[in-house]
Amino acid sequence: MAIRSALEEEVLMEIRPGAGERELVRRVAERLVGQVNGSGIANGMIVGSVARDTWIRGDRDLDIFMLFPPDISREALEEQGLELARKVAESLGGTHYEKYAEHPYIHATIEGLEVDIVPCYRVNDASSIRSAVDRTPFHTRFTKERIGPFTDDVLLLKQFMKNSGVYGSDQMTEGFSGYLCELLILHYRGFTGLIEAAKSWHPGICIDIAGHRSKDFTEPLVVVDPVDPGRNVSASVSLSKLCEFIELARGYHEDPAREFFFLPPGRIPGRDEFESDLRSRGTSLYAIYFATPPYIEEIVVPQLRKSLGAICSLLARHEFVVSRAGYEMHENRSLFLIELLTDTLPSVKRHYGPPVWAFQNANQFVQKYLDSGDIRVFSGPYIENGIYIVELERTYRTAGDLLRSTEVLATGIGRHVREVMAETYTVSAGADCYDEDFSGFISSFLHRTSPFLTIQKKRKAITSGPNG
Amino acid sequence: MAIRSALEEEVLMEIRPGAGERELVRRVAERLVGQVNGSGIANGMIVGSVARDTWIRGDRDLDIFMLFPPDISREALEEQGLELARKVAESLGGTHYEKYAEHPYIHATIEGLEVDIVPCYRVNDASSIRSAVDRTPFHTRFTKERIGPFTDDVLLLKQFMKNSGVYGSDQMTEGFSGYLCELLILHYRGFTGLIEAAKSWHPGICIDIAGHRSKDFTEPLVVVDPVDPGRNVSASVSLSKLCEFIELARGYHEDPAREFFFLPPGRIPGRDEFESDLRSRGTSLYAIYFATPPYIEEIVVPQLRKSLGAICSLLARHEFVVSRAGYEMHENRSLFLIELLTDTLPSVKRHYGPPVWAFQNANQFVQKYLDSGDIRVFSGPYIENGIYIVELERTYRTAGDLLRSTEVLATGIGRHVREVMAETYTVSAGADCYDEDFSGFISSFLHRTSPFLTIQKKRKAITSGPNG
Repeated sequence: MAIRSALEEEVLMEIRPGAGERELVRRVAERLVGQVNGSGIANGMIVGSVARDTWIRGDRDLDIFMLFPPDISREALEEQGLELARKVAESLGGTHYEKYAEHPYIHATIEGLEVDIVPCYRVNDASSIRSAVDRTPFHTRFTKERIGPFTDDVLLLKQFMKNSGVYGSDQMTEGFSGYLCELLILHYRGFTGLIEAAKSWHPGICIDIAGHRSKDFTEPLVVVDPVDPGRNVSASVSLSKLCEFIELARGYHEDPAREFFFLPPGRIPGRDEFESDLRSRGTSLYAIYFATPPYIEEIVVPQLRKSLGAICSLLARHEFVVSRAGYEMHENRSLFLIELLTDTLPSVKRHYGPPVWAFQNANQFVQKYLDSGDIRVFSGPYIENGIYIVELERTYRTAGDLLRSTEVLATGIGRHVREVMAETYTVSAGADCYDEDFSGFISSFLHRTSPFLTIQKKRKAITSGPNG
Repeated sequence: MAIRSALEEEVLMEIRPGAGERELVRRVAERLVGQVNGSGIANGMIVGSVARDTWIRGDRDLDIFMLFPPDISREALEEQGLELARKVAESLGGTHYEKYAEHPYIHATIEGLEVDIVPCYRVNDASSIRSAVDRTPFHTRFTKERIGPFTDDVLLLKQFMKNSGVYGSDQMTEGFSGYLCELLILHYRGFTGLIEAAKSWHPGICIDIAGHRSKDFTEPLVVVDPVDPGRNVSASVSLSKLCEFIELARGYHEDPAREFFFLPPGRIPGRDEFESDLRSRGTSLYAIYFATPPYIEEIVVPQLRKSLGAICSLLARHEFVVSRAGYEMHENRSLFLIELLTDTLPSVKRHYGPPVWAFQNANQFVQKYLDSGDIRVFSGPYIENGIYIVELERTYRTAGDLLRSTEVLATGIGRHVREVMAETYTVSAGADCYDEDFSGFISSFLHRTSPFLTIQKKRKAITSGPNG
């Protein structure tokens, strides 16, 4: 096994689950599996990080899968699965409620542990699955057989990634899943090997542990699933998160420090500081606050992304130059934050018409603006590169006017976002964008810095600052 | 021959050269040709519109070519050509001076006529010419044999085109040459036929009278030279001028009016009106005034165009959005006029770095802004789509600061323009852009309208206006 640095050993001491936690988790897990097996209709299986001993101290979420025979119907699976899951949870004195991903499952709280009890099909190989969850037992079997010697490496990697915000395959994070961490550790034979390799990664890199890739993947990072040649385990990893990890690996390799695993929490600046930051930037900031659509994150987050993109395109079509934009989702409220180079545009706006050689359209266009009546024509129509242009009065002279207009709901925003915004939304400008609840997000938006540089700046501040 | 409308007959009465003018022009031309022939070393030839009787009353510029045998050297041609031209001009009592196009020639004033006396080679066919002027005699022979029945049509077309600014193959106009007018009239068998056809022209149209095109041309309008299969006679015609002519043809066909031939001169608004126009547009206007480079128009105009393009690109690189730009050249002074959507930008500017996977560059970039010292870093470096971005202080917060900086001379402006601007140039903003000498250009810039719509607006004003 790899020789660890003193720092890594120190980190491991803090993140390895304690004996009591292990004992509790194992005992509950085994009892749940025993209950499932005792039902006679399904086999119980511990999956996830608990199955591999790769959970970080305190992150002891328990995943119990119930494998049903593949010859029962989907309806029967859901019905029997939920019924058995409830019975199993109750037999251990757990409270529980139904949740829904690709199909329904039970979430229970048992002896202080959060437990998901999930029905799935017991299929013969991972490429003949009927639902995404059917693949999970194959992942568990694959890593469980191999990860033993690398348990500490996985713990280090997970802590390293969590600390800098690149851990998690959810829509909000677009980062690295636990299974992906385990595969990377296996492939590079440890944390040190992975760090060494990732320094020189570039988008398009392809890791195929089983050497059985069956198609071309287009994502920035490709790690072919060793149990399914047609699946990219790292499909969730965005280009930015990949690059952030590359940068962190370089930084850690060059100068390993405790802050790569444990970054002291940043101070969140208050309203006064926000106002002074904004003044010094000199940009025009807009905030759109609205109710978070009442759907699961996997549905809402892509819609937030799409909607923000549509609003930025709307601004661009009206010639307001967007410098940056971001979104933040809280449980009840969400926020689009948009920074513009300019807030106010001139009265006159160039309006593009048809090409001159499009006879019919060209004639109509010319007649419309020749007998313009109520329309104020500043100049034109004139011809530029063969296209008619006429200069008209601009409808929205400020970005605020546009964002408060009906154009916003008429543009390509996501369905559930439109539903809540159609009810109400507020548009704030400048200092009024500030909201106590979102101050952390707003501050990190204005002071946006990559994870590695956040670490480095914090280290500089600690060693050289007045409180250092 | 075509039956002319009363309007066209009326126009012809005004533009056909009078008997006195014809007699004077012919007499001078024939005496000049006689003198050349009498020299025994070259043959004299009347070329241009005088040779074909296609000149507009008053536009009686005379072109006399002296055809030398092709076996003399270029130096001998120039030397003997200039000597003979001077002798010929003096023999008719003319004052004269040397001019220079592809090679030198003599410009003389004889009995009030402006005369060019140009030496060229007498070659066997137009495709074996040694200099562009050698082609001219072939053009003259080709049209002289055919244009007779269409003389009036050519006169109408030239007047129609001159009136709306699309006549002239010079760099400033980028329009239709006299020879091109004659070929179009021949091809469509008269003015009416051309108007009828041009209504439906589109870019890419190709007219090949002799049916002998020997290459693919890429210009918007192609008229293959009947004396040279590898030459496009309309290479000078820009897409905009082509479209303006298409539009005029449609307008005239629909509703022929005297204003298509004689547009009453527009009133040029004064400074007060300019200021109020500018206020209502709400844009930021900049004027750069500088000495006109002391070279011929064919050299200076392309440089003005290139320089203005370079300055607009410079503005765009610094995120100032150019709405429109134009140039005007007077004998002593020239002007770049640039209209911007915004004059002032925020302090903060996004500065793009290398991609994260470019190891060396990425490291240098990160180090530079981590230990930024004197550089003010607003935020970052952070990663967007795999690229490093850092937000720095903007160097030029107003377009005026940028235009008055050394960046202007360091950008890709034309050589002779740089020479004069390196001496001095002035940058004016807003109302100060106004200059009495350039008021016509400035007004037509702000009120830019295609030639056809200018005619239509004038007609509406005449019929409905208070003085109508």
